[in-house]
Amino acid sequence: MLPDFTEMDTFRALLANAPGPDAQATSGATARNAQLTKPPGALGRLEDLAIWYGGWRGDARPQITSPQVIVFAGNHGITAQGVSAFPAEVTEQMVANFQHGGAAINQLAKAAGARMDVVALDLDRPTADFTKAPAMSENECLSALKTGWNAVDPAADVLVVGEMGIGNTTSAAAICTALYGGAAAYWTGRGTGVDDAGLAIKTRVVTEGVARQAAGARDGLDILARLGGREIAAMAGAIAAARQLRIPVILDGYICCAAAACLHRTDASALDHTIAGHQSAEGAHQALLQRLDKSPLLSLGLRLGEASGGALAINILKSAVACHSGMATFAEAGVAGA
Amino acid sequence: MLPDFTEMDTFRALLANAPGPDAQATSGATARNAQLTKPPGALGRLEDLAIWYGGWRGDARPQITSPQVIVFAGNHGITAQGVSAFPAEVTEQMVANFQHGGAAINQLAKAAGARMDVVALDLDRPTADFTKAPAMSENECLSALKTGWNAVDPAADVLVVGEMGIGNTTSAAAICTALYGGAAAYWTGRGTGVDDAGLAIKTRVVTEGVARQAAGARDGLDILARLGGREIAAMAGAIAAARQLRIPVILDGYICCAAAACLHRTDASALDHTIAGHQSAEGAHQALLQRLDKSPLLSLGLRLGEASGGALAINILKSAVACHSGMATFAEAGVAGA
Repeated sequence: MLPDFTEMDTFRALLANAPGPDAQATSGATARNAQLTKPPGALGRLEDLAIWYGGWRGDARPQITSPQVIVFAGNHGITAQGVSAFPAEVTEQMVANFQHGGAAINQLAKAAGARMDVVALDLDRPTADFTKAPAMSENECLSALKTGWNAVDPAADVLVVGEMGIGNTTSAAAICTALYGGAAAYWTGRGTGVDDAGLAIKTRVVTEGVARQAAGARDGLDILARLGGREIAAMAGAIAAARQLRIPVILDGYICCAAAACLHRTDASALDHTIAGHQSAEGAHQALLQRLDKSPLLSLGLRLGEASGGALAINILKSAVACHSGMATFAEAGVAGA
Repeated sequence: MLPDFTEMDTFRALLANAPGPDAQATSGATARNAQLTKPPGALGRLEDLAIWYGGWRGDARPQITSPQVIVFAGNHGITAQGVSAFPAEVTEQMVANFQHGGAAINQLAKAAGARMDVVALDLDRPTADFTKAPAMSENECLSALKTGWNAVDPAADVLVVGEMGIGNTTSAAAICTALYGGAAAYWTGRGTGVDDAGLAIKTRVVTEGVARQAAGARDGLDILARLGGREIAAMAGAIAAARQLRIPVILDGYICCAAAACLHRTDASALDHTIAGHQSAEGAHQALLQRLDKSPLLSLGLRLGEASGGALAINILKSAVACHSGMATFAEAGVAGA
């Protein structure tokens, strides 16, 4: 069901020829929505969500029973420059915390009734410091994309991807600066909480990295390899695989959306099967969501990563679909219309 | 455990002497939050919610297992003036829909793991048309307050109250105009979807009702009786009872908040155990939330009532509490600090 790929250009072709929503299911869901026992439009965005979801699932009266949350972890060579408030070994320590059920995302996935998978990518092989060399070779990036691609459960009916990787807000800022231009300072935030000196280092690292790596990049996938990280590439691979499987995706915060932005720059329709779960407090996430033309479901000041904001939004989507598919119509309930 | 009252002044005294949060639980929850495996503040508002909830429950590491949703229904004499897009008999038809599980709130309560109760208040006795006489006598209002008061399950650990009552956005607008002043048009919205002519009627009815009823009102409870409805008074009674039982409340939309505002005007601390579940698309809800000093958890364009927006927010509060009480500390997980 899920096609395979062995070269980056094959992945590009899969992106370009990905399936779209089912028009018949979309119109069926739209018609059903108009008959439900509520004033027209009274469920607001929940109505749009349910119709969108039904279209992608090819089902005018869908159910959500099997959400999947995947947390990808990777290490970053740029941490040697002092871009994070936490030491690099925290990546591996947090992976253990995920595996033992102690992190925020464990609680949030459980509260959403979601299966949770943790995928650590070569933690003993950090990416290169992108101020000196490309973060990943094309083959390393391809390998990470495939890891994400193959991590998606074909039986899932909604997917949230997230990440853990000390240093990766710097990588995300570099990706955004390369993709969208503007000053590095605009795209660079405090991540896990660096002080002013740390923020100055991050901004310099982003500036230098983009100056060295961005020239000559053909598309978002080139940017992903040169400035990204293994966990960022894996998120991009998982988002793309979900599209092939017609599994709607809820995007998480800044780093997840930077991964998504690499797909979006490569193919403008590559994120049509995604919605923004939340607006992170990480500085430039709002600006990035605007570039992706996504309106967040939640805005609660989260800035944790780990798929946390996306997972928190699963219950919103579930509730929307539950209303759509579970409510009685005016005729069924014997309720008079307007 | 829940005190009884037989006079309005006894109810006033209960409001004035209601219990507050537990300072020891609040400080215990605050200390625990600081040790959890995440950067400080990275869960944003979820952290504040969990600490607030723990304080009210008197438990530094609380659980949410038993949410309760109550939908109160009442009929309004002002419907005779043509203030709604729907006929008045829809109130009773929707009560049947609630009882049969076909309404939006049934799906939302289920998605939140909440018990749902439906309480219809004298549907065959609409309130008086408040452009001609007080909507309720003090005794009628007291009776409705008591119905709400007694509907709260003492074993619940979070409460959402909502309403069904054709005509009740007009009543809510009249309450807000009387409590906060300003033009009736400022507080009057389209409710279930009236056209421009209907909106003009609503605005005139609110103007006339406030002109006739507001003078000489001593407090919010007087306003509630003169311009409210039985379901609105019942919501106020349930919110006040939850305070006695230290059950945190998630407020729903415009009409629920108008009920809450009557308590707030009567005693400024009467809503300290409540949070705003969402910002409704009903015109003046945002302004009303500002008057109540509440910041909504969700803003998804809902304008349905029925407790729908409050119920949708239950899973946010549950998720916040699940993170707080379920996460490992840095020491437990062996994760290095910043």
